[in-house]
Amino acid sequence: MADGPIQELVTLLARLPGIGERTATRLAFHVLSLDVGYARALGRVLSELHERVTRCELCGNFGSGARCNVCSDARRDPHVLCVVARVQDLIAIERTARFRGRYHVLHALLAPLDGIGPDKLPLQALIDRIGREGIDEVIIATPLSVDGEATSMYLAQALRATGVRTTRIASGVPHGGDLEFTDQITLGRAFEGRRDL
Amino acid sequence: MADGPIQELVTLLARLPGIGERTATRLAFHVLSLDVGYARALGRVLSELHERVTRCELCGNFGSGARCNVCSDARRDPHVLCVVARVQDLIAIERTARFRGRYHVLHALLAPLDGIGPDKLPLQALIDRIGREGIDEVIIATPLSVDGEATSMYLAQALRATGVRTTRIASGVPHGGDLEFTDQITLGRAFEGRRDL
Repeated sequence: MADGPIQELVTLLARLPGIGERTATRLAFHVLSLDVGYARALGRVLSELHERVTRCELCGNFGSGARCNVCSDARRDPHVLCVVARVQDLIAIERTARFRGRYHVLHALLAPLDGIGPDKLPLQALIDRIGREGIDEVIIATPLSVDGEATSMYLAQALRATGVRTTRIASGVPHGGDLEFTDQITLGRAFEGRRDL
Repeated sequence: MADGPIQELVTLLARLPGIGERTATRLAFHVLSLDVGYARALGRVLSELHERVTRCELCGNFGSGARCNVCSDARRDPHVLCVVARVQDLIAIERTARFRGRYHVLHALLAPLDGIGPDKLPLQALIDRIGREGIDEVIIATPLSVDGEATSMYLAQALRATGVRTTRIASGVPHGGDLEFTDQITLGRAFEGRRDL
């Protein structure tokens, strides 16, 4: 409906998740109404994004150098690793400020139906780190989904030979959750995972 | 929370209306997960946006040349003008496919409290067009807000001397609207604007 460059922008924005034609149109006109500096800054960051973002050589986290912010931080506990599927999960965990160790980002989950087998997981790199860095505990924080659980079980088994303590994040009723509206699997897990008070 | 270039992208995206830090983070990681071509294409369109978008010399609509798509279209009725406040409103009217005339985009509304007086409205250009293009009717489609109504009344009065027929789009209960939940002003206007059946 819009003309020329505005329509090009709308079409590209509408390919983003959760952004329909209407929202994309609103955003495009908003950007046009702002100072040219904003559009140029956003344009430059986007154009250079893939070149500038690096994967940390140790943990696979995104960053802008050879090592990520977390791995470069000497105050982190060097003996605990948290295994996550995606960098987004790492960021969610960092927001809690409850974990002071380091990470290992898989950038994948086992998904046999999609042809993603154990060879796609950076398992050897993880095993190498456990020996080299003197890791005491590996906390597996893959999602509580079917693929996440399968990956967790596979990793736990594969790490057994290293003798490292391997733990899994708790599954249960979420904070503020109502038992009446909690699904059966979650509620069952909450009972299995009960703790002494 | 994110690192380097990803955080720069998140910060810029979070400045857009309706996009918070969380959505911006989700969008940034999505763009990073796509082929580099998408980020570059979006980056280029944004960087060049303000330079490429032109204002139509006749009506003020956005486009990519001296005249916009609507004004260049010889099939449009050259004797009816629709006055709108913003290009977004023009696009909304085009979607209805019910108006076959041309437009005059004000890019402003009277708002005395914000210091926007009649001198900010392209009134002389509109009066010149009415004479030059032999306009029979000017349909005022500014919003039904306080500023939109004030602008409409001001324009109607200012155009009186030209002798052109000046009309205002209808105000009333919207399509599918429930009378019980329609505000008093709208329902009052629906009665004032009633039509013979």
